[in-house]
Amino acid sequence: MRVSQTNLAGDLLLHLGHPSDGALHERLKRALRNAIRNGHIEVGTALPPSRQLATDLGCSRWAVTEAYSQLIAEGYLEAQTGSATRVCWSNTSDADSQHLTPRHAPAARFDLAPGLPDLRAFPRRRWAEAVRTQVTTAAFTEFGYPPPGGHIRLRQLLAEYLGRSRGVSATPQDVTVCMSVTDGVRRICRALRADGITAVGCEEPGWTRLREVIRAAGLDPVPIRTDSGGLRTDDLAAHTGLRAVLTAPAHQFPLGSVLAPERRAALLHWARQVDGVVLEDDYDAEFRYDRRPVATVQGMDPSRVVLFKSLSKILSPALGIGWIVAPPHWTNHLHQADQTASQPPPLDQLAFAALLESGAYDRHLRACRKRYRNRRDAVVQALAEQLPHAPISGIAAGLHLILRLPATLDTAAVVTAAAARSLRVADLTTYHATNDHADHGLVLGYGNLADNAVTEAVRQLHQAIQDSR
Amino acid sequence: MRVSQTNLAGDLLLHLGHPSDGALHERLKRALRNAIRNGHIEVGTALPPSRQLATDLGCSRWAVTEAYSQLIAEGYLEAQTGSATRVCWSNTSDADSQHLTPRHAPAARFDLAPGLPDLRAFPRRRWAEAVRTQVTTAAFTEFGYPPPGGHIRLRQLLAEYLGRSRGVSATPQDVTVCMSVTDGVRRICRALRADGITAVGCEEPGWTRLREVIRAAGLDPVPIRTDSGGLRTDDLAAHTGLRAVLTAPAHQFPLGSVLAPERRAALLHWARQVDGVVLEDDYDAEFRYDRRPVATVQGMDPSRVVLFKSLSKILSPALGIGWIVAPPHWTNHLHQADQTASQPPPLDQLAFAALLESGAYDRHLRACRKRYRNRRDAVVQALAEQLPHAPISGIAAGLHLILRLPATLDTAAVVTAAAARSLRVADLTTYHATNDHADHGLVLGYGNLADNAVTEAVRQLHQAIQDSR
Repeated sequence: MRVSQTNLAGDLLLHLGHPSDGALHERLKRALRNAIRNGHIEVGTALPPSRQLATDLGCSRWAVTEAYSQLIAEGYLEAQTGSATRVCWSNTSDADSQHLTPRHAPAARFDLAPGLPDLRAFPRRRWAEAVRTQVTTAAFTEFGYPPPGGHIRLRQLLAEYLGRSRGVSATPQDVTVCMSVTDGVRRICRALRADGITAVGCEEPGWTRLREVIRAAGLDPVPIRTDSGGLRTDDLAAHTGLRAVLTAPAHQFPLGSVLAPERRAALLHWARQVDGVVLEDDYDAEFRYDRRPVATVQGMDPSRVVLFKSLSKILSPALGIGWIVAPPHWTNHLHQADQTASQPPPLDQLAFAALLESGAYDRHLRACRKRYRNRRDAVVQALAEQLPHAPISGIAAGLHLILRLPATLDTAAVVTAAAARSLRVADLTTYHATNDHADHGLVLGYGNLADNAVTEAVRQLHQAIQDSR
Repeated sequence: MRVSQTNLAGDLLLHLGHPSDGALHERLKRALRNAIRNGHIEVGTALPPSRQLATDLGCSRWAVTEAYSQLIAEGYLEAQTGSATRVCWSNTSDADSQHLTPRHAPAARFDLAPGLPDLRAFPRRRWAEAVRTQVTTAAFTEFGYPPPGGHIRLRQLLAEYLGRSRGVSATPQDVTVCMSVTDGVRRICRALRADGITAVGCEEPGWTRLREVIRAAGLDPVPIRTDSGGLRTDDLAAHTGLRAVLTAPAHQFPLGSVLAPERRAALLHWARQVDGVVLEDDYDAEFRYDRRPVATVQGMDPSRVVLFKSLSKILSPALGIGWIVAPPHWTNHLHQADQTASQPPPLDQLAFAALLESGAYDRHLRACRKRYRNRRDAVVQALAEQLPHAPISGIAAGLHLILRLPATLDTAAVVTAAAARSLRVADLTTYHATNDHADHGLVLGYGNLADNAVTEAVRQLHQAIQDSR
């Protein structure tokens, strides 16, 4: 059945799924993408203006513009200044790869969405050599099933390394190897639920995917405000019965604040009072440019904190290597409830362990820090030249910054105009769980932006802002 | 608190957990292992005889002997012929690896438990080279997040390869890369449940871990009898409301039967009648020694079958590479419900794709088939010499066989006596979900048994049987 513009909203409503399947803009994007891929919407069809579709669906306009702009970036839709957004992908072939990929280039020319390190800088030869050494020299028993919790060698080296570099207090058996922070949070959420915990406080704004993982595990994500001092720990006590909170003390996403010293103490005080647990996402802790790195909250009270970290922004998300540091109670839960939990390949665990042990990992980190600091300086300078009146913040650390836009400007329209220029940027609103805020701005990730593309990307952003006025 | 023999049962009952945490013997093993590791039971403590503990716990005796013998194999317990089983592991050191590994050698000298291929034969240099080529030559974008469903290159090559070698009918978009059959079944179970399916028929006897995964996903595993013709498809209709069944048509585990042709048709007829789905575990399909391999049921009706397979018994479980072939309805479910599902590292997916494409994978399979056929012949011959009166079955395919024991012999005692001789074997009873059967025998895996150890392993088994009389 073909869907025209007039019955699009009805068709989408049928396929939106449940809130437990994820955030509305994600579900809307999937429903729209499927309708296009299944041929329900013809090529060339003009989609209704975002304001109209939002009214028809009874949702916020940004959910619609976010879905539109992601599908523009993926090549399913085409946006032209002053004209309607149109479907530009058709499913004509039968059994080849065109089924799976849009007809147009799926990746934006300039990808400033946050969340990736510089993929060009992956230490290919060093990693290939580390893997080769392990694969050719390991005992044959290493090719069997890894023990629950991960390879003991890596757990030992991580416990040492994290103690030295992040102030973490852990024995090897407190370390569980997992595949990503998302994977780690998903697993701990199952353990929390089995233990009778029903809700997890989440930074507002915060990393959307982790909120979705919490919700998918059957727990209720409770928004807790953040400000320039990080999580508003004074808000925690207001939520009676709350016993778990997820926070990124080293570098709040997306605002970039560091948890203030008195709030670190208040956080742990709260956790002890409610017999609760702090889930510490040690986000971007390594990439602090202008001051010394902040140690983990975990080190202040290992009995009350579960720490999560992965290599996704240090080496590559493609490695699928992360870790959880947890007190025995939660570690036992993790291992007993989930004996068959997936792990990164044990030979890769050994390869990473070898990089930790030889110091190659530390050298890589130092090189990254220098690279990203220089790139941050270049981005800040280009923004100052092209957009001198737009305030920027969150530049002391990490791989992204916040560009504030005036409230008179429609941020969602800027994102869509940018996508039409093959520039992918994220609306700060996307990271809010509620509409109860006045955050107008963009999150600009520069981790995976080529050095020689900085000036042109910022120029295109400037143009996109002009387009959207 | 230290536990004496007299209050051991009470302590264990407190820590057994819920049926949703897994099979009773697994939970019992974990509870006992934890009690030893936490120091609740002192080194040297004699454990109560299995019959007594079973009575105290109100469970079957084999659950206890199974737990005992696994802990003997892991080095936590010591069994001596004619004497009580004793704790032999102590937790004395503080923060080193002894915390995590038993003091005694954890692995049995002869591991005849089923489930592993020959880890000595992993093609180390070929794999290391395939990974090196991908890591050093892939586009930098391959170091980002892989798309849901897996790398398109691998999905394309798998669709072609499975069509050619297994009679599978699939387009690349029907293939989802996952980490193992366990992982695949876990994921499909979530989709089944979201679709209103509440129970899954399971072969009885069958692979315990998959039953546990089904239960952990909130579905009810329903035992369906098997015999020499595989799954008793005539039993399916008796279970009103049943709409899903998990089966291994190519090689039933553990009995080794092949699903009879008329039952293949009956299975699909049933699935259409109830608007249901067949979950096909393409277990050991490659290792068929005396006849041509049997094609998949999936190829007979791709709209009603979800196929699962992994490299764990072909290359190594350490690679963590598997796949699901499913009709669009279930594939959409998999991708939409689980956008952040873990995958094997995309560079490993590309390395495996290269082995498929070059024919190296096919050559490896042929070499394996020859190696395992020769080893099977050697094991069968050694058994005929040492245990001429014990019938064997299930030798036409796969990496294990069934050795029947007389009903007068206590199989659980044989397993324990074997463990005391550092010989790990599995009690056939372990794979039954119910006690309603008369299967007396052992499952003997020879996949990971060194060729030069065959004679001695069978000799030790013979001795263990003598010990247990």
